[in-house]
Amino acid sequence: MTVSTPARITTREVLAQLVDELGDAVSTAAGDLAVVRSDRSGHVSDAPPIAVVTARSVDDVRAVMRIATSTGTAVVTRGAGTGLAGGAIATGGEIVLSTLAMNRLLDVSVDDELAVVEAGIINADLNTQLAPHGLWFTPDPASRAISTVGGNIATNAGGLLCAKYGVTRESVLGLSVVMADGRLMEFGHRTVKGVTGLDLTALMIGSEGTLGVIVGATVKLRRLVTGAVAVLSARFATVDDAARAAAVVSSAGLRPALMELIGESAMAGISAHLRMEHPGGSRLIIQTDGPGAASEADAIEAIITSLGGECELSMDPAEGERLFSIRRAFHPAMAALGTVLIEDVCVPRSQLPAMFAAIGEIEKKYDVIIPTVAHAGDGNLHPNFVFEGGGADGTQVPADIWAAAGELFQAALRLGGTLTGEHGVGLLKRRWLRDELGDEQLQLQRQIKQVFDPLGILNPGKVF
Amino acid sequence: MTVSTPARITTREVLAQLVDELGDAVSTAAGDLAVVRSDRSGHVSDAPPIAVVTARSVDDVRAVMRIATSTGTAVVTRGAGTGLAGGAIATGGEIVLSTLAMNRLLDVSVDDELAVVEAGIINADLNTQLAPHGLWFTPDPASRAISTVGGNIATNAGGLLCAKYGVTRESVLGLSVVMADGRLMEFGHRTVKGVTGLDLTALMIGSEGTLGVIVGATVKLRRLVTGAVAVLSARFATVDDAARAAAVVSSAGLRPALMELIGESAMAGISAHLRMEHPGGSRLIIQTDGPGAASEADAIEAIITSLGGECELSMDPAEGERLFSIRRAFHPAMAALGTVLIEDVCVPRSQLPAMFAAIGEIEKKYDVIIPTVAHAGDGNLHPNFVFEGGGADGTQVPADIWAAAGELFQAALRLGGTLTGEHGVGLLKRRWLRDELGDEQLQLQRQIKQVFDPLGILNPGKVF
Repeated sequence: MTVSTPARITTREVLAQLVDELGDAVSTAAGDLAVVRSDRSGHVSDAPPIAVVTARSVDDVRAVMRIATSTGTAVVTRGAGTGLAGGAIATGGEIVLSTLAMNRLLDVSVDDELAVVEAGIINADLNTQLAPHGLWFTPDPASRAISTVGGNIATNAGGLLCAKYGVTRESVLGLSVVMADGRLMEFGHRTVKGVTGLDLTALMIGSEGTLGVIVGATVKLRRLVTGAVAVLSARFATVDDAARAAAVVSSAGLRPALMELIGESAMAGISAHLRMEHPGGSRLIIQTDGPGAASEADAIEAIITSLGGECELSMDPAEGERLFSIRRAFHPAMAALGTVLIEDVCVPRSQLPAMFAAIGEIEKKYDVIIPTVAHAGDGNLHPNFVFEGGGADGTQVPADIWAAAGELFQAALRLGGTLTGEHGVGLLKRRWLRDELGDEQLQLQRQIKQVFDPLGILNPGKVF
Repeated sequence: MTVSTPARITTREVLAQLVDELGDAVSTAAGDLAVVRSDRSGHVSDAPPIAVVTARSVDDVRAVMRIATSTGTAVVTRGAGTGLAGGAIATGGEIVLSTLAMNRLLDVSVDDELAVVEAGIINADLNTQLAPHGLWFTPDPASRAISTVGGNIATNAGGLLCAKYGVTRESVLGLSVVMADGRLMEFGHRTVKGVTGLDLTALMIGSEGTLGVIVGATVKLRRLVTGAVAVLSARFATVDDAARAAAVVSSAGLRPALMELIGESAMAGISAHLRMEHPGGSRLIIQTDGPGAASEADAIEAIITSLGGECELSMDPAEGERLFSIRRAFHPAMAALGTVLIEDVCVPRSQLPAMFAAIGEIEKKYDVIIPTVAHAGDGNLHPNFVFEGGGADGTQVPADIWAAAGELFQAALRLGGTLTGEHGVGLLKRRWLRDELGDEQLQLQRQIKQVFDPLGILNPGKVF
């Protein structure tokens, strides 16, 4: 990839080139520019970008990248903007390249259990179209009703079902990627096995728009899981008890489809929000599916009861939905309490009790409440920092909240964990990246980034 | 990674430095040097290397790499030497760095279902040590009794169980890697989720010693599958019938632990070798495990019978072993026929019948026999080219065999497949790499390689 340094060019000239080549796809409407200054983190950039280009095709994406390279202009690729780490936020002087209109399902092979999609297809829409074939794209971030498959891939999205069904990386066979200079490359295979050369598909997954623009994907599907689903909801006196019960369930070799742990202050907030009676304590909500759904649920109920949990179990869909609605109420309940910074650390699951204890210490030290839910099967916690919002629109995170979050990240690292289990680094976790990777690995990662993006125009200021 | 070009240095001086720093770990015994000129492909390099260094520790590996970098000497990392693509073969002027003595299991966490190992531990030895914990490292290359976990990772090894239990990549959480200049880096996590920065763990997996020396790994384990196992063995009139039956089994959503398809000439060769009666045709051998073993086996038997297969089914371990022994006899049977080039292509599994048809065409065109077995659940075929050996020791592959193999690779690519499903590119498939990746991606891969290995001393001439 050889590029000459472009001549100094004004944003007005960049915009003229975009409009000239892409016409209607280019928007400079104030509303459109305002939207892309933010994402679901609530963070807002300090200036609007040059334009939002809604690509209708791979050729549109290639045209944008050619203009970006020839003018040295930064490009922020954006799907649905549902990120929680500021990874798709744009600021002054940048082009936003939206993949939202590239939303077609191009091919489904039932025999090979795969689909070929454009990057902008919404996760839930893909699954709606796959259902008649009896197939399922398993990555299930909580945002799946509104997030794109391209965004899921760019962040290696997780979700509630990962302990049993894997993260996004396990569901991607191949990728179509437009490089910084506009060339189109195809990485990976249509096959489930393949070891020809370096695994650039895996390298792209989770790279948050810093290596190239993912325009399409060949994804691996599963058969839809059929049959009844069992839901268990169990109250424990303390979050420590609940976390230990979750560990015993996993250690027993049981494989719940999901196992959500709701901390004590999270349960208090949810109960208040739902105006339900709440005797205190923590809650574990577990779902089992597949042919073993009933027998696994029975085994789990026995474990919970033996450990002092009060357990409800149902295989009735409506009743199961009622039991699960407590977990679903978490985010609305938090939003009702104040402004929320939704965090995301992951520890080896044996360390869940220790991580909850560390969160309790930080709550005391900073005099904040940090209601927390966890995907207990894989040790992924979402501590929610609730605060009185600072900044003009009440969404900027105050310094003491970041300080508390910083301590929480250090605690996760000390327990053998990671800064981010599934949300990504984006803008908001950049300052802690070095703590996890160290100087030498960070330098190595930057060198790899430079191979893909010698001009530094791909999502600058994110991750690295 | 900044390095100055080293001064011209003789191999004698390199050897002196190695001995000076590593003493006993360095061997120049003729027998040791002869072994590492070859691997299980039978290919032999044209000269012995400088020395074989059997590293006893990470520090030994670091010392070797520092000497290699300061003297500009090539290093070939080698585990058990069981590769089939020449990836660990060394030649004149090179240092062989053996990880075989670094074979400890350092840590097992039952609760987190993970283990930390040194790279040289043998796959089967690891599983022997894990069994008392009720745990299992699932990657199962046919070589698992003799191949190292480090080698499994360096080639992203597959095996017979991949359709149900995944390839090696799905079982690796983190890696310890000694870089070309001797620095030690830690990639990845102890957690099952984690998206901090680029996924360098995944980039290392399958990189065949070209990016760094894998000295240790944190691997993801599964609970041992308990209970009875069912084995089915079914005869079909043609390989096409057998391949179609395998496709129906997969399409029915059944998940055999293994599903091996034995082609017609392969069956003829096996029957002759075992002196068993053989009415002709092809054979499908299937194993089911887990709680659904019996019911899945019954469903598969029904499919096979409905499609005209003659099926035997047993849940008795000894009888199951007898049924499976036919597959196990494949390699000895081929070796009895002549010299063998064991190939490895992968196609979308719906294309298995087409790939078998293409192999039949190539057999006719080149007047060779290409007995073939396939891991039918994931479309991975092993065509075995049997020939009268050329070269001094009868193992060098004649030009017309390579020509036939080349056509076979092209056929796999035309069917949406890949050059290599699990053996890797190594030395022997390099000339076809461009056909699959194209010039631009190959160039990109070389640039990434250069970031890790600016002097080009890591397994030069392999893959790239």
